[in-house]
Amino acid sequence: MPRSREDTRQHILRNAERLFAAGGYDATGVAEICRSAGVSKGAFYHHFASKHELFLELLDTWLAALDASFASAVQQAADVPTALRRMADLVAEGIRRPEVRLGLFVEFWAHAQRDPLIWERAVDPYRRYLTYFERLIGQGIEQGDFRQASPRVSAVLLTSTALGMLMQAQFVPEDEEWGETLRATVGLLLDGLREDRQ
Amino acid sequence: MPRSREDTRQHILRNAERLFAAGGYDATGVAEICRSAGVSKGAFYHHFASKHELFLELLDTWLAALDASFASAVQQAADVPTALRRMADLVAEGIRRPEVRLGLFVEFWAHAQRDPLIWERAVDPYRRYLTYFERLIGQGIEQGDFRQASPRVSAVLLTSTALGMLMQAQFVPEDEEWGETLRATVGLLLDGLREDRQ
Repeated sequence: MPRSREDTRQHILRNAERLFAAGGYDATGVAEICRSAGVSKGAFYHHFASKHELFLELLDTWLAALDASFASAVQQAADVPTALRRMADLVAEGIRRPEVRLGLFVEFWAHAQRDPLIWERAVDPYRRYLTYFERLIGQGIEQGDFRQASPRVSAVLLTSTALGMLMQAQFVPEDEEWGETLRATVGLLLDGLREDRQ
Repeated sequence: MPRSREDTRQHILRNAERLFAAGGYDATGVAEICRSAGVSKGAFYHHFASKHELFLELLDTWLAALDASFASAVQQAADVPTALRRMADLVAEGIRRPEVRLGLFVEFWAHAQRDPLIWERAVDPYRRYLTYFERLIGQGIEQGDFRQASPRVSAVLLTSTALGMLMQAQFVPEDEEWGETLRATVGLLLDGLREDRQ
């Protein structure tokens, strides 16, 4: 049974994602992606203007999924600490899923630093997340759940922890149960911000 | 005046470091390094077996400098929190120096994930730092400066913060005074670990 247009598109994306994560973006050519996905170059270029465009679409897909799960965590939580713990749970679950390609995350990062187009597409969401956490933590302080720490510094601490841990989980996957460690680390961090510790 | 052997070696290293950070490891050829350093290919291969060897030597040089400055911080500090704050100062000063190539750090990371030789050379020091911080924090707990948190989780939190912040400083250098932010973040983190907050 022939695949639908959208199925083909998704099939190409999943194959490219796997190849980029395994061999790197530079070393993975369009020919290899086509071979792996079992499609012609014509079909590839019907769906994507370039390998670069496909790469950026992978980034957008990731971020859209993350945004949706964060929004739902905030909506369901009674207070900010609970929301942040729930977000850590979500990322922890993500780390465990084999289809989540942490290697690709490092690839994005390495390329963003020398490709202005990738940088631009990556820096906006990054700044958006930082502002989002800054606001959330500010709200936690107002509601009396967090002590009077700088919301900005706290937000940078949170994004740094998440970024640094994703890198380590990718680097030495077998050294820790990374999902559990992420949960514990965010827990420790939130304990440090608790109002009753003031 | 002709350069000494060691000067030539260092000169090649500095040029390669700059080119790798600007254009990436893959895109930077030995020919370009030779051109930039003003040396022949013969001279290059007299000093380095390959581009790969040169890359690993840059990593070793970095780590040796970091080790030495951390050891001196611990030696001079009266207690563990002071030692950790002093280490944060050292890294903060490093971020500000233009010759510190954070881009190269991301390059190492991206390559380590698909090059077993780079991975091996990078993973040992990584595990060593983690154990080192775990022991330091354990010592801080014993001496009554830190509350009874898990030394391992606290150490992972510390390395994650440092790694994640180095990445952000490289990604959006102008968004924060990163040296100051690193200092503030580690301060916040150590506040959270303080015994009198138990």
